[in-house]
Amino acid sequence: MVNVEIITIGDELLIGQVVDTNSTWIAQELNKIGFDVLYKSTVGDNEKDILDAFDKAFSRVSAILVTGGIGPTKDDITKKTLCKYFDSKLIFNDDVLKNIEALFNRSGRTINELTHDQAYVPDKCTVIQNIAGTAPCTWFEKDGKILVSMPGVPYEMKSLMGNEVVSRLQKFFHQTDSIQHQTFWVNHFSESALAMHLETFENELPENLRLAYLPAAGIIRLRITGKHICESFLSSQMAEQKTKLLELLGNNIFSEEDRPLEILIKDFFEENNLTLSVAESCTGGNIARQLTTIPGSSVYFKGGVVSYANEAKENILHVNTSDIEQYGAVSQQVVEQMAKGAQKILNTDCSIATSGIAGPGGGTETKPVGTVWIAVCYKEEMKSQKFLFGKIRENNIQRATNAALTMLYELVRNDNRT
Amino acid sequence: MVNVEIITIGDELLIGQVVDTNSTWIAQELNKIGFDVLYKSTVGDNEKDILDAFDKAFSRVSAILVTGGIGPTKDDITKKTLCKYFDSKLIFNDDVLKNIEALFNRSGRTINELTHDQAYVPDKCTVIQNIAGTAPCTWFEKDGKILVSMPGVPYEMKSLMGNEVVSRLQKFFHQTDSIQHQTFWVNHFSESALAMHLETFENELPENLRLAYLPAAGIIRLRITGKHICESFLSSQMAEQKTKLLELLGNNIFSEEDRPLEILIKDFFEENNLTLSVAESCTGGNIARQLTTIPGSSVYFKGGVVSYANEAKENILHVNTSDIEQYGAVSQQVVEQMAKGAQKILNTDCSIATSGIAGPGGGTETKPVGTVWIAVCYKEEMKSQKFLFGKIRENNIQRATNAALTMLYELVRNDNRT
Repeated sequence: MVNVEIITIGDELLIGQVVDTNSTWIAQELNKIGFDVLYKSTVGDNEKDILDAFDKAFSRVSAILVTGGIGPTKDDITKKTLCKYFDSKLIFNDDVLKNIEALFNRSGRTINELTHDQAYVPDKCTVIQNIAGTAPCTWFEKDGKILVSMPGVPYEMKSLMGNEVVSRLQKFFHQTDSIQHQTFWVNHFSESALAMHLETFENELPENLRLAYLPAAGIIRLRITGKHICESFLSSQMAEQKTKLLELLGNNIFSEEDRPLEILIKDFFEENNLTLSVAESCTGGNIARQLTTIPGSSVYFKGGVVSYANEAKENILHVNTSDIEQYGAVSQQVVEQMAKGAQKILNTDCSIATSGIAGPGGGTETKPVGTVWIAVCYKEEMKSQKFLFGKIRENNIQRATNAALTMLYELVRNDNRT
Repeated sequence: MVNVEIITIGDELLIGQVVDTNSTWIAQELNKIGFDVLYKSTVGDNEKDILDAFDKAFSRVSAILVTGGIGPTKDDITKKTLCKYFDSKLIFNDDVLKNIEALFNRSGRTINELTHDQAYVPDKCTVIQNIAGTAPCTWFEKDGKILVSMPGVPYEMKSLMGNEVVSRLQKFFHQTDSIQHQTFWVNHFSESALAMHLETFENELPENLRLAYLPAAGIIRLRITGKHICESFLSSQMAEQKTKLLELLGNNIFSEEDRPLEILIKDFFEENNLTLSVAESCTGGNIARQLTTIPGSSVYFKGGVVSYANEAKENILHVNTSDIEQYGAVSQQVVEQMAKGAQKILNTDCSIATSGIAGPGGGTETKPVGTVWIAVCYKEEMKSQKFLFGKIRENNIQRATNAALTMLYELVRNDNRT
């Protein structure tokens, strides 16, 4: 097992300007190849603190991944500090300049002096070209340990990790073992209930396999990761555990693919030539937003209505005024009519509708905050369900979104299996 | 200046299960009272690493804020480790039990043994009640320095910080200075262009004042924070700098209030009895979502249409088919008709419409990825503008959202001033 520390550098991280999502993403990627992140440290753009962080990290782990502080402006001092730490001097690297030139030509910009100087790199490192930005990635070795310095811009860092860094790390640390993953999307369980349900299974897992819980607002992704020198042996181990888990969880598993729900849905709808619309009340546009974060979602997603006011439910979605009066906007009757309405006006095969009390206000004795009705419809078929989530508005919105997408996916998949 | 380290504890932070937003929020709050966060460290639920992090932090800062690892399950060992570090033993605290009982009674749950044990607290600390959860906050003093242990659940931590911890920190460190903030929302500037524009201003700021840049997808919040023993002197200093800044930035400042855009809009619409609807194409529901994250937004926000497909633009929003054919969906003609359509079908005073190419696909020579048309309308008045954002889909969606909300706010404010 290779132990890792992630060091993030930048004043903006310490004054709360920026939420650090880089280290979370890096940890996930390293976890997949069986590396263990043991520490994360954040320091400002300050030589003494950076040097101290490097020292501390080399004393306790084998691989150090550093992000940030390598932009062209004078407050970024990571490169200079790396030179000092590794007793290195800056030399000009033609390939970096060529990469910068290609990048700037594409967008018609001219290279100023500060950007030109990005091509100076420490002489005692391996340079890894950053095709997405001007700051190259630099790779240092010391006493059988490594330190990699990457940009803090998330998509540059991700492109470098995906294209080069992960595979170099595996090679450097002789990770010749075969690694396999199997993901399961689990519904209808809280994390603690699932952990209790799977306690024996988890305890009985072979040493070279491990189980990770990746929960997100009401749904849990479970991942088994296995590592073994012999690929076919590992495959049979994985298959055995998969069978066990399928027995233990049955219908609560609604997908075995490691992709987000909105991608699963896009791919399924695209393959099956289906279209979708939404009618959102309590989720306020969050379902549409989540579906449309995926490039190309317009092939199946036609649009939707955010019917926050009752008038919108009546005038656009043609929900019965008398039903709203009799049953309330948060009711099975209304949510099903919303789904039908969206399906009709947007002329789609499927639709989703939500109506609920996100909170913190608006709750009653019979319909407390967190009550949400969700309907999904596929051609003539309609499924609707009432949920009782919690007290916190943002959680309720996200849980309703995930529940709705799960219900839709289950409905269309079941229908297209038979 | 009080120096701070934030230590976040939890295996889930190291395997990438959870993005740490706590430390960002804490840093922002401490920044406001003039405390400086110099380091952030994350360790797992592991005694040796936690003790080591405490030692390191006490060697370099005066205040240590710790979150996480104080839940009722056995993997949470922060409390036990605090006992060891501060040579303390666990004693039963009746007030904590009463708090837990009140919490559980409200939701009709019964207290199990694990939860009951949350009332055991270290004897050498001050206990701060956590009204939002079962794990109390504990406050330790050592050689004139302090360590505060808080829960990792964000809303519990925030409630504790807001109600107790911040004011106790100020008192403990004799922060009797008056502290004042002035926020400015700045439009039409990139962060680096703004920094260059304000370089002289920033260099000439009095020692006791400082300027923070808080950028978010196309808009920048600027904050001047001042600290001085004499409140009236500070007020005059702040007023002087404010005048300077207003001169330097003029119409680029569209608000001087320190609240998010969606709250500024809600308050303004509510006060002026106005209503709003949206028609979103490239933002895919993100504007509606952002507006409805605010509790009570239904008083002014009636809803919207996510018109992803052209059919939706035509059938629901009544955009001219021939205009879509002639000018394309991403055009001034179409986006203005979308805004008018939303205003009409949802019967609102104001509306917002967006149509653009979020990417990565769909760009052309004349309308490259990142091209977005935005229209805002207030009764008979219509403003529309074309933007060219970048290449990254999620950034384009968020920048278009912020630009649209800014345009709307500027329009309604200007009209209600005259």
